[in-house]
Formats: sequence, C-alpha cells, structure tokens
Amino acid sequence: MAAPTPGKRPSESSVDMREMVLPESANNLGTIFGGQVMSWIDIAAAIAAGRHARRVVVTASIDALHFLAPVKVGEVVRIKAQVNYAARTSMEVGVRVEKENLISGAVAHTATAYATFVALDEKGKPTDVPPVTPETEEEKRRYNEAVKRREARVALAQQLKKKR
Amino acid sequence: MAAPTPGKRPSESSVDMREMVLPESANNLGTIFGGQVMSWIDIAAAIAAGRHARRVVVTASIDALHFLAPVKVGEVVRIKAQVNYAARTSMEVGVRVEKENLISGAVAHTATAYATFVALDEKGKPTDVPPVTPETEEEKRRYNEAVKRREARVALAQQLKKKR
Amino acid sequence: MAAPTPGKRPSESSVDMREMVLPESANNLGTIFGGQVMSWIDIAAAIAAGRHARRVVVTASIDALHFLAPVKVGEVVRIKAQVNYAARTSMEVGVRVEKENLISGAVAHTATAYATFVALDEKGKPTDVPPVTPETEEEKRRYNEAVKRREARVALAQQLKKKR
Amino acid sequence: MAAPTPGKRPSESSVDMREMVLPESANNLGTIFGGQVMSWIDIAAAIAAGRHARRVVVTASIDALHFLAPVKVGEVVRIKAQVNYAARTSMEVGVRVEKENLISGAVAHTATAYATFVALDEKGKPTDVPPVTPETEEEKRRYNEAVKRREARVALAQQLKKKR
Amino acid sequence: MAAPTPGKRPSESSVDMREMVLPESANNLGTIFGGQVMSWIDIAAAIAAGRHARRVVVTASIDALHFLAPVKVGEVVRIKAQVNYAARTSMEVGVRVEKENLISGAVAHTATAYATFVALDEKGKPTDVPPVTPETEEEKRRYNEAVKRREARVALAQQLKKKR
Amino acid sequence: MAAPTPGKRPSESSVDMREMVLPESANNLGTIFGGQVMSWIDIAAAIAAGRHARRVVVTASIDALHFLAPVKVGEVVRIKAQVNYAARTSMEVGVRVEKENLISGAVAHTATAYATFVALDEKGKPTDVPPVTPETEEEKRRYNEAVKRREARVALAQQLKKKR
Repeated sequence: MAAPTPGKRPSESSVDMREMVLPESANNLGTIFGGQVMSWIDIAAAIAAGRHARRVVVTASIDALHFLAPVKVGEVVRIKAQVNYAARTSMEVGVRVEKENLISGAVAHTATAYATFVALDEKGKPTDVPPVTPETEEEKRRYNEAVKRREARVALAQQLKKKR
Repeated sequence: MAAPTPGKRPSESSVDMREMVLPESANNLGTIFGGQVMSWIDIAAAIAAGRHARRVVVTASIDALHFLAPVKVGEVVRIKAQVNYAARTSMEVGVRVEKENLISGAVAHTATAYATFVALDEKGKPTDVPPVTPETEEEKRRYNEAVKRREARVALAQQLKKKR
Repeated sequence: MAAPTPGKRPSESSVDMREMVLPESANNLGTIFGGQVMSWIDIAAAIAAGRHARRVVVTASIDALHFLAPVKVGEVVRIKAQVNYAARTSMEVGVRVEKENLISGAVAHTATAYATFVALDEKGKPTDVPPVTPETEEEKRRYNEAVKRREARVALAQQLKKKR
Repeated sequence: MAAPTPGKRPSESSVDMREMVLPESANNLGTIFGGQVMSWIDIAAAIAAGRHARRVVVTASIDALHFLAPVKVGEVVRIKAQVNYAARTSMEVGVRVEKENLISGAVAHTATAYATFVALDEKGKPTDVPPVTPETEEEKRRYNEAVKRREARVALAQQLKKKR
Repeated sequence: MAAPTPGKRPSESSVDMREMVLPESANNLGTIFGGQVMSWIDIAAAIAAGRHARRVVVTASIDALHFLAPVKVGEVVRIKAQVNYAARTSMEVGVRVEKENLISGAVAHTATAYATFVALDEKGKPTDVPPVTPETEEEKRRYNEAVKRREARVALAQQLKKKR
Repeated sequence: MAAPTPGKRPSESSVDMREMVLPESANNLGTIFGGQVMSWIDIAAAIAAGRHARRVVVTASIDALHFLAPVKVGEVVRIKAQVNYAARTSMEVGVRVEKENLISGAVAHTATAYATFVALDEKGKPTDVPPVTPETEEEKRRYNEAVKRREARVALAQQLKKKR
C-alpha cells in the first residue's frame, strides 16, 4: 500500500524525551506505578501528534501495553515517539520506552505502545491532518504495520459498539 | 471452566474511586491529557490487585484502551475496579471509567480497561496469589472472559518475544 | 424538626473516594502530613456539595477535626461524604475517613469531619440550593444533628465578628 | 495561670510562610479549594511545632476553621504560626492566614486556625516536649486561651470516645 | 549614585518564605535537586517584584548561583527576597536562602541569588515600575551594588547578542 | 590546553529532554514561572552529570541565566545538556533551552545555562569522576571555554569566601 502525497515525514514529528524517576509515586519496593510511565507515554505521543497536526490533539486510544521491566526510583526513563500513520482526522503514534540506570549505565527496553490521537479545531471538533509520507525502509514498515493495526482497531471498535 | 476454591470473591477486591479534574494538566481547550486518566486507572487497579493479593503489586500490562469521551476540567471522574481472575502470580483487573458533570448531572462512560498485575514478595520476586472465586452471574461472566483475554495475551507475548 | 420538601436525598450527593498514599509528602517516619488528608476531605466534600447544588461551590468552614490514627505511606485512604443538611445558600457535608492497610487488610477509622460549602452563581455570588430531604433513620439523625451544629456555628461566627 | 519554667518562648517557634497561588487546583471561577489552604496551614503549624519540640511531629487535631474570604489564583497567601501552649507530649499551634493581592496591594484576613501536634520519638511513640514560656502580654493571652481550648478539646474527645 | 524619588522602599517589597522539604524530588542520598531550590528562589523573587510593581512580572535573568550546602529531606528552607533596585521596566531582586534542621536547630546559609524581573502590562508588554528609594545604610549598599551588577549584566547581554 | 586521557566523550553524557508546558504554574498572562524552566535545566544537567560520573550528583552552582523569551502554556520546551569539562570531583554541564510552539511550528532559543555538579560516593562525600575527552571541534571549543569559566568561578568563590 502506497502512502499519499504530499504529506509529512515521521521524522518531522519524532520526539525524544527523558524523565528522571523521582520518589513521588513509588511503592515500598521503590518501583514506580505503571500509571506514571503511561502518563509520560501519553505526553510524548501528544507532542508527536501535535507536531504532525499543528493542532490541539486528544488521546483516542492506546493499544495493549506490556511492561517488560519495572522502573525504579533514581533511574532515567527515555520515551521516543513518532507519528507512524495518519487517517483523515486521526494519527497513530508509535512509542518506545527505555530505562537507564545512571550508576551502572545499563539500558533496558521497558515498553512499546501505539496510541491514536485526534486533531481538534478551535471549537473542539475533529479536523483534517496531513497524511504521513514514509521515506526510509523503517518508516515504510511502521506505516504498513500501522495500517494493519488501524484495521484491527476499527473492527474491535465496531464489536464494542454492538455490545453496549 | 470452573473457578478453583478456596479463593477470594471479586467483591472483596472491588474499588470505587473518584477524582476531581483540576486544571493542572489540561490543554488549551480545557480537555485533560489521556495520561492523567490512565494514571488513575492504574492506581485503582493497583488497589484492587493489592487488596486481593495482600502484597506489593506491579503493573504487568494494560489491554487496549479506548477513550469514548474527552474529560474536561471541573468534571468528576469515577473509576471502578475489581479483580476478575487470578493466575498463579498475576491478576486481571477490570476497570470502568465514567465522568460526571457536577453542574448538569450528566454521567458518561469514558473508558473500559483490563490491566494485569503481578504480586511481589519482600525481595521483589513474583509470588503466589489466591485464586478468584466468582459467585454472581456477572462475576462468572467476567471470570470466563478474563480467561480468554489471558490466553490471547499469552499468545501475543510469545509472538513479541520471537520478534525481538 | 421536619425536612422541607421537595428536596434532594443525601444519597443523591453521596461520594465514595479512595486515594493511594504515595511518598510525596511524608515525614521521616513515613507518616503523611495531616494537611494531605484535609485536602482529600475538602475535595470529597466539594464533590458532594457540587452534586447537591449543581453549582460551583466553595468551602466556608470545617468543624474541629481529630485524627484518630496516623496514615502511613502505602496505605489506602477512603473518604465518604454526603450532604447532611442545606440552608439557603449553604450545605453541611459530613465526611468519614478510613484507612486500609492493603497487606494486613486492617481498616481503621481515621477522622470525621463536617464541612460547610456555599454555592456560587456565574458571577461568584452565593445562590440558592435545594433543601435536603432525609428519608432513612440514619439520614434523619444526621439532618437533625447538622441543624444543631449549624446553630452552634452561627453563634460562634457572631462571637468572632464581635471580637475582630 | 502561670507558665512553667524553664521552657521555650512562642517567638522561638514562630513561622512566617508565603505561597503564590498557582492555577493547579482552582475551580472554574478561579477560586482555589479550601483544602489547599488547609494543607499550607498544616505545614506551617508542623514547622512551628517541630521547631518547638525538635522532634518529628504529627497533626492530632485542628479546631473549627472559618474561611472569611475565598482565595484567587495569582494572589499570595501568608501563613503565620507559633506554638501557644504545650502539654506533656502535645502542642497547640495558632495559625493566621492572610491573602494579598499583588496588583492592588489589598491584604485580607482569610482564616484563623488552632492545630494540635504530638511529638514522636525515633520509634514513633509520643515523647515529652518543653513547656511554653509566654513573656509578652499577647503571648500570655494566647497561652491562657490555649489552656481553655485544650480543656474544651479534652472534654469533646471524651464525649466522642463514649459515643463510638 | 543617588536614588530617584519618590519611589518605594525595599522593605515594602520584602518577602519571607519558608518551605518544608518533602521527599518528592530527592535523590537516593536524600538530597533534593538544586532545581527545587531555584524554583522557590524564583517564586519568592516574583512575589517581591510583583509587590513592588503591582503588575504581572516575568523572570528576565538570574545571576550566578552557588549552593553552599546541600538541602536534605525534612529540613526547612527559608527564602528572603526584596527589590534592591529598579530600572525603567525591570527590577533586581536580592534573595537569600537558608536551611534549618528542625531536630538540631542548626541554621545554615545555603545560597544567595540576584534575579531580574520585568513588569508587564495587560497586553504582555514591558511597563514602567516605581523607582527604589533606599533608606537604611544596608538598603543603600544593596542599591549601589545592584547598580554595578546591572552594568555588568548589560555589558554581558550585549556581548551575547554579538556572538549569536 | 589538552584534555587528559583516557576519559569520556561529551556525546556519552549528552541528554535530550522535552517537557509539555502545562497550566500548573502559569501567571494570569499564561506565562510560566522562570523557576519551572530552571528546575528542568537542573534535571537535564543532573542526568548528563550522573551519566558521566556514574554516581549520585548534586548541583554546586549555576552560572548567570538569561531568559531570552517567555514560555507559554501549551508550548513544548526542549532541554539539551552535555558535560563540557570535568575537574577532579566536579563537572561543568552546558545546557541549551529551546521552546517550540506546536501550532505554528516556531522554535526559539529560550536560555543557555552552565551548571556545575559534584559527584558523591555512598557516604555523600565528593568523589573522583572521569576526565572529559573532547573529540570534535565543537566539543574542544566547549571544553576550552569551560576551563575559562571554571577559572572565573574559582576566583569568584574565593572573593565570596573572604567577604563572608
């Protein structure tokens, strides 16, 4: 499947964010709540989507999220995000989370997430965003996988609508 | 599929939580970030899992999350959670999020989420939790659906492992 | 004393809130500041009052508050609130605070509070609220006690005015 | 009633604190929650009590609190506190809250509060604190009024114990 | 150099602020981040500048800042600030930071800072502020030193402009 | 002046951080406090220093900081930092702050800062860090300028010591 043109490249929306893990919201074992990481994922993804759309954006959904390793107080979390694919008014943002232990230097993959955002106009209504133009092989692979995830999401959303 | 006994009922872990939406983390349209809601979902689910396991618990995963309606500053968010099913050291927690507009009284379903948590012993190693004993028809339906979601999650996790 | 009609039942404004106690604001013994609990009491009471009045509400006063037990990091605090009684533009909200230790399962009564809130119109001026219609014996007892507390509060406020 | 000697003067524990009111926790009319002010009152009182006792201290109670004026975002809140009186292991702290509008220069009395704190030893058990030695007429007046409030509080606490 | 008249005295803008150091943002040795102290310095200076100008103010610069001693969780930080000197639309605020250990009673000088703020009108444009009228010897010394620091700052700013 | 070997390259400690500007701590014109930006500068610099030293680090000083442009709610702040130079137990970290308006795409230089950090051992005592080995022309220029700034800072610190 070919990407429409003219659009924006994923690299134009790519975000690289780091957060120091402070003792604010840790449990008694010094592990932070997953919700803190989810919150950073959402912020990084919102920056990427906002940069692609040049609009206020809101989170529409986030795909299944697996925490591969717990994050400890004192570690640094790195969150990388870029818009993989855009439909008319919505965008899929891919997010990769890593943690780094500053003392040992060890880096570990912590989570991968796919979030969808919708762009809003001044009245808060969904509004069109530019298409995504993947250029590198990596960008094209992500684009094509995002198209498949979108189809699965749409199918799931229709199932949920019937059920309620 | 029958639930093992003796275990704990979902009602023993059920949590009812409310949060006032403050202007801390809203965009220029007065809509709060999805990450704030995800953070509350994680806390509510952690309380339910902690209450079931009587242990420190950490988030292992959260299934796909659809935001059915944006949440505005000044609204109240209600988060309900209970443990649907427990495997050896992990638990699935079902979470329902609603928002209430205090001025109009309107209540709307905002999101549904399924999170899995792992119980940890004093050294931070996974440790056994009691099984879930569903009693009402609703509890049994949730239990059986959780078993199916768990099978899907295990299959997905194995796929992800191969890929990396 | 009979309650005026038609009004709203206390159950229509009742709020059930839970907060996980995080290490954000604890002293060196792991005990959180009383002010954190007061802040949750105020939020829960504001939700109850807002739900009764369907208006923006502001705290007018809070009666004497005794902390029966200190709250530790890692515990869960439950705050229950409902409007006991309403005068013309103000409401008395009763609040009960309990703490739960997730590991031991122990639940303890932590504090009881009575707060009064005033409803404001769009210009920030006090505005009328519906009367409270108690129905159960418990609701009637709370209503009558609230009337007595209100009389004591009015007397105290007059004393304070003279003094200043 | 004479104060015991040797003790500490109220001026040795007196605290002067100011907080800028940020939009973090305001309602839609720009008024902050009473709980934010209560939280600052508790911190100021805890500093005064900690300075008197040279110990970790915890809030035991706070007397009735009347908000004489709402506080707006952008205003500055001033909180003054000093230990008025000390019993064996507890202290009464008097707190006065004022707000200042930086643009107009207007200052207004916002609330007066009396909080009691208990000093804890390293194991978290109540421990003795120095007596208060009032010297000025103002300090002596506060001391004597604090003694009366303490008697009223003890009587109330005994009533509450019977009831539960 | 003589101070212009009629103006405002430094004592009219002087601010005395205290903050309890909470475990929110400490490293694994229990020392808080310098950025937390910088943030309090900025707030105290903004209150002093706002009180002098009776306008919304924004930070323009802060001179070199040396931390003479680390600050630990559980200590109390005292921040004192006053406007030393005012140019047409800007003000220099002197800030002194001390820390107090409540258990030992030890007080230590932690940092000294000089910040400049600009007053803004309703449209966000720089606007005139009253001159400073020093009266005591201390105020005059601070005034004259501020004039010298301002000259150095202006020279440095011009150097930086050329370089970019 | 030649850099000692074997050491670490500045690129090994370089940090790229982004923060969404939330309405938490803005004034009535929607401009955030300078202290919030200072706090992010300190965190980014602490991560760079921690990564260079593989130790807990504390802020020793921050050089003069000029805010070239105010930061508004809804903008994204980017903070880049790297260790320019290391003395025995201390490091100079260079920090560049930019802001990006997601709607317009405009990027502006907001501030440049130089902070020094000290590495601490397990007992909180200063401990040796690896030297910096600049390789590119840019890294060498920064290294040599950092040496000059250090000399100026040492001279200033000695002056301050005499004065107190």
